[in-house]
Amino acid sequence: MSRIDGRTPEQLRPVTIQRRWSKHAEGSVLVSFGDTRVLVTASATEGVPRWRRGSGQGWVTAEYSMLPRATNDRTDRESVRGKIGGRTHEISRLIGRSLRAVIDYKALGENTIVLDCDVLQADGGTRTAAITGAYVALADAVTWMQREKKIIRAKAVPLTGTVAAVSVGIVDGVPLLDLAYEEDVRAETDMNVVCTGDGRFVEVQGTAEGQPFDRKELNSLLDLAVAGCADLDAIQRTALADLTQA
Amino acid sequence: MSRIDGRTPEQLRPVTIQRRWSKHAEGSVLVSFGDTRVLVTASATEGVPRWRRGSGQGWVTAEYSMLPRATNDRTDRESVRGKIGGRTHEISRLIGRSLRAVIDYKALGENTIVLDCDVLQADGGTRTAAITGAYVALADAVTWMQREKKIIRAKAVPLTGTVAAVSVGIVDGVPLLDLAYEEDVRAETDMNVVCTGDGRFVEVQGTAEGQPFDRKELNSLLDLAVAGCADLDAIQRTALADLTQA
Amino acid sequence: MSRIDGRTPEQLRPVTIQRRWSKHAEGSVLVSFGDTRVLVTASATEGVPRWRRGSGQGWVTAEYSMLPRATNDRTDRESVRGKIGGRTHEISRLIGRSLRAVIDYKALGENTIVLDCDVLQADGGTRTAAITGAYVALADAVTWMQREKKIIRAKAVPLTGTVAAVSVGIVDGVPLLDLAYEEDVRAETDMNVVCTGDGRFVEVQGTAEGQPFDRKELNSLLDLAVAGCADLDAIQRTALADLTQA
Amino acid sequence: MSRIDGRTPEQLRPVTIQRRWSKHAEGSVLVSFGDTRVLVTASATEGVPRWRRGSGQGWVTAEYSMLPRATNDRTDRESVRGKIGGRTHEISRLIGRSLRAVIDYKALGENTIVLDCDVLQADGGTRTAAITGAYVALADAVTWMQREKKIIRAKAVPLTGTVAAVSVGIVDGVPLLDLAYEEDVRAETDMNVVCTGDGRFVEVQGTAEGQPFDRKELNSLLDLAVAGCADLDAIQRTALADLTQA
Amino acid sequence: MSRIDGRTPEQLRPVTIQRRWSKHAEGSVLVSFGDTRVLVTASATEGVPRWRRGSGQGWVTAEYSMLPRATNDRTDRESVRGKIGGRTHEISRLIGRSLRAVIDYKALGENTIVLDCDVLQADGGTRTAAITGAYVALADAVTWMQREKKIIRAKAVPLTGTVAAVSVGIVDGVPLLDLAYEEDVRAETDMNVVCTGDGRFVEVQGTAEGQPFDRKELNSLLDLAVAGCADLDAIQRTALADLTQA
Amino acid sequence: MSRIDGRTPEQLRPVTIQRRWSKHAEGSVLVSFGDTRVLVTASATEGVPRWRRGSGQGWVTAEYSMLPRATNDRTDRESVRGKIGGRTHEISRLIGRSLRAVIDYKALGENTIVLDCDVLQADGGTRTAAITGAYVALADAVTWMQREKKIIRAKAVPLTGTVAAVSVGIVDGVPLLDLAYEEDVRAETDMNVVCTGDGRFVEVQGTAEGQPFDRKELNSLLDLAVAGCADLDAIQRTALADLTQA
Repeated sequence: MSRIDGRTPEQLRPVTIQRRWSKHAEGSVLVSFGDTRVLVTASATEGVPRWRRGSGQGWVTAEYSMLPRATNDRTDRESVRGKIGGRTHEISRLIGRSLRAVIDYKALGENTIVLDCDVLQADGGTRTAAITGAYVALADAVTWMQREKKIIRAKAVPLTGTVAAVSVGIVDGVPLLDLAYEEDVRAETDMNVVCTGDGRFVEVQGTAEGQPFDRKELNSLLDLAVAGCADLDAIQRTALADLTQA
Repeated sequence: MSRIDGRTPEQLRPVTIQRRWSKHAEGSVLVSFGDTRVLVTASATEGVPRWRRGSGQGWVTAEYSMLPRATNDRTDRESVRGKIGGRTHEISRLIGRSLRAVIDYKALGENTIVLDCDVLQADGGTRTAAITGAYVALADAVTWMQREKKIIRAKAVPLTGTVAAVSVGIVDGVPLLDLAYEEDVRAETDMNVVCTGDGRFVEVQGTAEGQPFDRKELNSLLDLAVAGCADLDAIQRTALADLTQA
Repeated sequence: MSRIDGRTPEQLRPVTIQRRWSKHAEGSVLVSFGDTRVLVTASATEGVPRWRRGSGQGWVTAEYSMLPRATNDRTDRESVRGKIGGRTHEISRLIGRSLRAVIDYKALGENTIVLDCDVLQADGGTRTAAITGAYVALADAVTWMQREKKIIRAKAVPLTGTVAAVSVGIVDGVPLLDLAYEEDVRAETDMNVVCTGDGRFVEVQGTAEGQPFDRKELNSLLDLAVAGCADLDAIQRTALADLTQA
Repeated sequence: MSRIDGRTPEQLRPVTIQRRWSKHAEGSVLVSFGDTRVLVTASATEGVPRWRRGSGQGWVTAEYSMLPRATNDRTDRESVRGKIGGRTHEISRLIGRSLRAVIDYKALGENTIVLDCDVLQADGGTRTAAITGAYVALADAVTWMQREKKIIRAKAVPLTGTVAAVSVGIVDGVPLLDLAYEEDVRAETDMNVVCTGDGRFVEVQGTAEGQPFDRKELNSLLDLAVAGCADLDAIQRTALADLTQA
Repeated sequence: MSRIDGRTPEQLRPVTIQRRWSKHAEGSVLVSFGDTRVLVTASATEGVPRWRRGSGQGWVTAEYSMLPRATNDRTDRESVRGKIGGRTHEISRLIGRSLRAVIDYKALGENTIVLDCDVLQADGGTRTAAITGAYVALADAVTWMQREKKIIRAKAVPLTGTVAAVSVGIVDGVPLLDLAYEEDVRAETDMNVVCTGDGRFVEVQGTAEGQPFDRKELNSLLDLAVAGCADLDAIQRTALADLTQA
Repeated sequence: MSRIDGRTPEQLRPVTIQRRWSKHAEGSVLVSFGDTRVLVTASATEGVPRWRRGSGQGWVTAEYSMLPRATNDRTDRESVRGKIGGRTHEISRLIGRSLRAVIDYKALGENTIVLDCDVLQADGGTRTAAITGAYVALADAVTWMQREKKIIRAKAVPLTGTVAAVSVGIVDGVPLLDLAYEEDVRAETDMNVVCTGDGRFVEVQGTAEGQPFDRKELNSLLDLAVAGCADLDAIQRTALADLTQA
């Protein structure tokens, strides 16, 4: 029994990472997980927020947003409603924490990198695509900072590892990797997992959408996710090694 | 080596659940996990939000908030700042999802229950105390609705199970149950786990605060959390069986 | 003819003042006027708002709020609506002015005390209970500041007097002290009076809810209020003298 | 010893009431108390707010605002700051209550009158000038409604009386009527009194700005205010009787 | 065929400019274009916004607003709605740009002038009346600054020219100057033109309300507008030369 | 003397219009004017805003926004600031008016089309690119509505013409077509012109950034703009005729 798009349960959708998408940003990536497309820009600036000044340490933060018609039905803009919704807040915080897990603040020095993740088209897995793309944009921004001598400490290595994320879920009793939207709405359990390149966990967020899930199901989902993140790690490395995009 | 308050790693703080705290609400609980105190009220009303009207199904939602001086330093009110912060949104959503996991919407009928969780004093674990207390307030509100004939379907059982929540974390390499604030700020990994009374998972939210965590650490945290939730389940049952509070 | 709860017209409801309610705040009081319960915390911090810097003078301010289900029907949170209502603003300002009436800003030095008055349960007279409790929390905070050497001027006495407040009103033609909610909604005239311990007035706010009131009615209400404030003053003194709460 | 503008303690500033100031509004008045100038418009519309529909009763409400440079220093617009300040809320509520005191809701029928009070120039007493002018604008709007057959009940008399307001205060130990700004900032006690034409009270709001005030001072202020309101009542009657403005 | 008020197509409505309307502002004007009445105050203060500090250059900005009942139907206040509408923003920006066109920032020095344009009564052409009146208020404020030695550079001439504005439009195929509201709603094309006293353009904003307009129509409208601005320029000069208002 | 990118004064930048960019929207276009890239989606839904219900007429509106790093320096999100800026409002309104100029509301029936114009990369002329692209997205949405029988009136032709927009300006005394950002910041006069396919004007918005401009300069800019719009009209027709994108 195959999935709606013919994938096997443990297969990612086609993933593409297009670097240097924007002429202005220090790092920029158009990342696709199937029909999900997220534009990520990394903006590097000197200085840090007020509460961190004088610490000698940098800061990395993220903002996630969806264009109004990224989805099947149009959603009102949060700027028009005048406030940011809970889902947006939650995902922005998740992306920020995930990327900060591979940053050495001291090595970064008192600089700030803001990762803007704007979903141009949504088809499930927007937050995991955003994290996976944001890592590449972040790496490019750090390289830019080193080249431009914005990182002043000699031999400083601001990036301590790599990070990628994928969704997993149980649909009709079968654990599946990288859910498309149609699968996601039918999932009994939904989990987002953020891993470092060495297979350890940065975030594990599992939610029972229907029935509660047991330890065995949890384990099978974690197995799928760890393997999926390893695949994404390879795709990220290939993109970063692509000299035509450097 | 014992903990700051003398507990063993797998021990909960003293937990108390005081029902019927408010004369107005259909269910109300003052819940304490050590020095953490949360006032939970369950407000039951006829009718459902617009998007659910005519479905024959009910709705359960939650709002979490902290009093300004629940914490060691005073925090500005969100009403004064004019917007709700990301953390508040995130926790409100978590509480709502957790309680909805044990609700049969059809059995509830077109009624709404709002769980207000206001933290009067914070000392770590406010969201898990809120969920644990909210279950008891919810159960009291459902009983009230049945007694007052607000649940119109014969033999309807709106509550399909019980739910409790606890935090776990790794501090100085040791997995600990139910972190107090001082432990929480030092934790390398922090996890909130929501379980049903039969030991299955509703939510698993693990975050690496420092180093990423591996599968073995994850497993030891899950073991602790499942046992802790079973203890909380017993405390909830005792509180609900207490005829002096009925 | 007695009142709904058996009181005489000139009798207060049972008033309790529980000090040291919170472990974090410099002063904290759970005050009850019958079923009305208000948690007041006094937060003392060094420094003053920008417009007062360099003046050598301190500042005292207050914020009043109701929990959503403090009342019989649930009210939406002001943080959710994104703005503070007129009634909340008005009461916060009244509490602040009342407490500032007994503060010597110079003696306080450039320190700020914020009084947070959160109504946990409402049954009429929430603003007067808040003021009465806030005085005790303020006194405890000032004592804390003196003990901690935050008040640097020798022999400075920041508190110049005591302050308490009570509501009075005319119900069915009879002037009554300390209206419960059921009486309040039936009152033709409603008045809140804030007095110092020596029986002088800090605030007099009388409103005709139905018919305008005449000078004689006004005088009888003022008589009741002055006597009620004297009773509250004694209760405050007893609470502050209670060494078990010190 | 005379006042800064040569008045006696019990004398009003020159008061003018110019009716029909606006061509659009059903009632409109430019009212001056000395250099304080308030433009009041009364907008009458069919229908009432949602919570009052089907009651057969009308509604009257008020909004107060200051132009940015009505005062000596420019104040930011509340529309620019995105929220209404506490003082504005408080005064709007006071004006609304004061006018509702002389309205028979049933006679008005399900119609709404909104009184917009915009301070064009401020020199003390803006709220009392607003109330005094609003009564005249309201009377004109009610007359318009009767003429246009918007009041459908035969012989209905929506206005049950007249209302006017004045400030009083103690400056340098002397009770004064109708304080100008310079006097207001120096007042030890400040009181706003709203009276009906028959000398009864609708609102009494007294505040100790410096020292608390005693019963004797309160009485002398009330005496002044009652006499001042009677003078204002005469001026209102004259304005309403002026056929050249009808 | 004459217009609704008997004017010829190329005729302005009666225009009056009353200076010194407010006792507080450095410049203040009540300007009328027929029944359109706008109160403009110019507030001059030392210092400039943060982004301009240290530049040695001044700043001029404007805020436009309508009283709720300036129009035939009452409009909700933007302060109550909590946000400024698009039309308000657009007109404020237009007024600011128009006045800045005749300001020499260096000559002004690090001072700011804010032009508040509050529409007391609207009957078409409120933005053009505001600009025309604002120029006079600005000129008075600059004169005040020179007299008060706020302009510190010797021989500095902050005002480099004069500016006025008028609306034009095509109604029933006929190009008309200075549209009243009734004409404005029927106009196929609507244009606002801001000119300097020497007949050059600062702003040209033409909009097809119904059919697109052609080059010939555009030219006839520009001809009308240039002549109308010249008339307004003369009226401004007369007002500024009026010693009784100086 | 050629321009920074080698163009002649009357030459457009390379313009591309990529249809069917999004899988969800009824019309969607990625439009580029040189390095300026705008994603436009047209969302067609049944029904109209409340104020238009029952009229039998449709509605078309637009919202413009910039991604935070569309520009050289990162701009804060309007959703984070909690309010929409004046520039955004102004451009959204301009786009909406421009498209409505070629809509027959009756033919559209009670349907609404929302044009979301999100600037992914900005290099001058974002509003003119948005209008030019929005026309194509609108045309596709109308075609979709006809195919899906959402347009119920037989032979109804909702689109009455075509519309395109271009910027022009005077740089170093030379009138130039389609300014890139670097040219735009140096322009003395800046004008945006919206034309229909038959060369008539929908909007003309000219602003003197430095010196006021005279009639001759205005005419030369209008000549350039009309020719540029004709070029854009041809590019739009080619895109719409491209069967590979249909």
